[in-house]
Amino acid sequence: MLEFRKDPVIGRWVIISTERRQRPIDQEIHTVPSQGSFCPFCPGNETFTPDPILVLNDTTDDPSSWRLRVVPNKFPALEIEGRIRRRADGIFDKMSGIGAHEVIIETPDHNADLATMPIGEIRQIFETYRERILDLEKDQRLKYIMVFKNHGVTAGASLSHPHSQLIAMPIVPKRVSEELAGANAYYEYKERCVFCDILEQELEDGIRIIESNGDFVALAPYAPRFPFETWILPRDHQCHFEKTPAYQPLAELISSVMKRLNAVLGDPPYNYLIHSAPFRHPFPESYHWHIELIPILTRVAGFEWGTGFHINPTPPEEAAEFLRNADI
Amino acid sequence: MLEFRKDPVIGRWVIISTERRQRPIDQEIHTVPSQGSFCPFCPGNETFTPDPILVLNDTTDDPSSWRLRVVPNKFPALEIEGRIRRRADGIFDKMSGIGAHEVIIETPDHNADLATMPIGEIRQIFETYRERILDLEKDQRLKYIMVFKNHGVTAGASLSHPHSQLIAMPIVPKRVSEELAGANAYYEYKERCVFCDILEQELEDGIRIIESNGDFVALAPYAPRFPFETWILPRDHQCHFEKTPAYQPLAELISSVMKRLNAVLGDPPYNYLIHSAPFRHPFPESYHWHIELIPILTRVAGFEWGTGFHINPTPPEEAAEFLRNADI
Repeated sequence: MLEFRKDPVIGRWVIISTERRQRPIDQEIHTVPSQGSFCPFCPGNETFTPDPILVLNDTTDDPSSWRLRVVPNKFPALEIEGRIRRRADGIFDKMSGIGAHEVIIETPDHNADLATMPIGEIRQIFETYRERILDLEKDQRLKYIMVFKNHGVTAGASLSHPHSQLIAMPIVPKRVSEELAGANAYYEYKERCVFCDILEQELEDGIRIIESNGDFVALAPYAPRFPFETWILPRDHQCHFEKTPAYQPLAELISSVMKRLNAVLGDPPYNYLIHSAPFRHPFPESYHWHIELIPILTRVAGFEWGTGFHINPTPPEEAAEFLRNADI
Repeated sequence: MLEFRKDPVIGRWVIISTERRQRPIDQEIHTVPSQGSFCPFCPGNETFTPDPILVLNDTTDDPSSWRLRVVPNKFPALEIEGRIRRRADGIFDKMSGIGAHEVIIETPDHNADLATMPIGEIRQIFETYRERILDLEKDQRLKYIMVFKNHGVTAGASLSHPHSQLIAMPIVPKRVSEELAGANAYYEYKERCVFCDILEQELEDGIRIIESNGDFVALAPYAPRFPFETWILPRDHQCHFEKTPAYQPLAELISSVMKRLNAVLGDPPYNYLIHSAPFRHPFPESYHWHIELIPILTRVAGFEWGTGFHINPTPPEEAAEFLRNADI
């Protein structure tokens, strides 16, 4: 079973994906990925992943001599084959689980880390995201692609080999819709992009800025959900991640921010995700793509699930100061 | 610092609460509450909590002979003293962190558990929630009270002694507002309560019902975010938890559901939370209070934070079947 189901009250979709089915006793929380055991993402083990969608390599003679591979997720949340069917289920609504779920194996080096990887390799990862997005957005059934990375067991990574993922969907995710709605409302009122205004105020204030270069800014957002939450935004107004002119300065900033996080928090588990406008978005003036980087330092509990609010013990001004002053 | 800050794009408030301030190295995820060490909630240690707001006891002669205590949270997310001030912070918005944050110490028995506790003690906990809500809602500054319980370290409990919490707030939480909006829209269209309609269909179908009695129904929701997510709703239309006529059948159902969860999942960490209408809610026809019970079996990762969608590997029909057939 791979299907979307809609909560009839709140309107939120969930993906029921039994490809990842677990018996009660095998539920994820009880399992810890074993370190040092067999890794299906390491060179030489290519046959343990589905056939690749994209391979970067210097020579085609040796199949295990690659720099980066993109493969379909072996346990996909959504599947590419089929027709989108929306159906009633009594008073409920469901939709077939159409989409794509790909894994970007970022490097052959099992122990590599964004904080220590050469800048060129980081750039290659982000350029690969772009390439996959440009390819998938040709599929008219798909409306959105979420690119994300889970690093560390408590951040949801089931394999420790450096990898990120993308999920392409036939619907725009709730959180992105909310951001679009907020950004559109602001634009209608002010005729300016809210993210551009935030950047302008933050760069002037400086207290929540972590680091910036000529093209990108890393900052602690004003109302962060999580301690040390970090956003990375292009300085210039850009609606779509995949239309960014240059990934080199992005890779440079990411490398540096990761070094700072490691220096201050000691290789924390983290998630990052790219928020970009949906394909064929009609109001490119109002949205500004960005990366949200979330170190996993607190536990989400009943209050957060019940309210949608978060309690954050670390003011962003303090987090930014720690990261800005990190010894890297 | 205790303040609400509003995300300028999405409109979500967060609570910045430095009462719980942590240095980078002390972040919660690195700490595991030690079992068997000193417990400030155990009888005899009453002086280690702030002065109680409410104590249930059979005799007042012995201060450590109590059945249940309610105390202010020692590290509150919000504070009761002060005036609500809403202010601009450049283009941002903030508000003073006014509210109440109380801890319900459910029993003197450090090792008690809802699954094995006498029904009368469970009823007493829920009746205490009601009593605190009725008292706090007299404060005209407050609009909402979220009652919740974190059980187990990975569910966010920092102390293992059985306790739950309530946070009273001057704003209606985002998730509750979304439910109210959805329920109102449904009511306007159908002139029926969406929760009543869900109950009717679910009771007829039976496939997602876990257990029911004359007054309450426990079911697996159609679009659950989490494996084994369970909702408990009153059969009859009731808008406010605190106006429920009888807590005895609720306590009976909770006891039984907890036994089922333990039998199937082996004392899982969990959160529960009570969703009730805001105080002085103008449309009591459209909202239906309920309890959401979330066993913590999966890890929330980048996809969920980025989209607001959840990937759930366990269809609710299977979860309900396991729980319905549990050997209790």
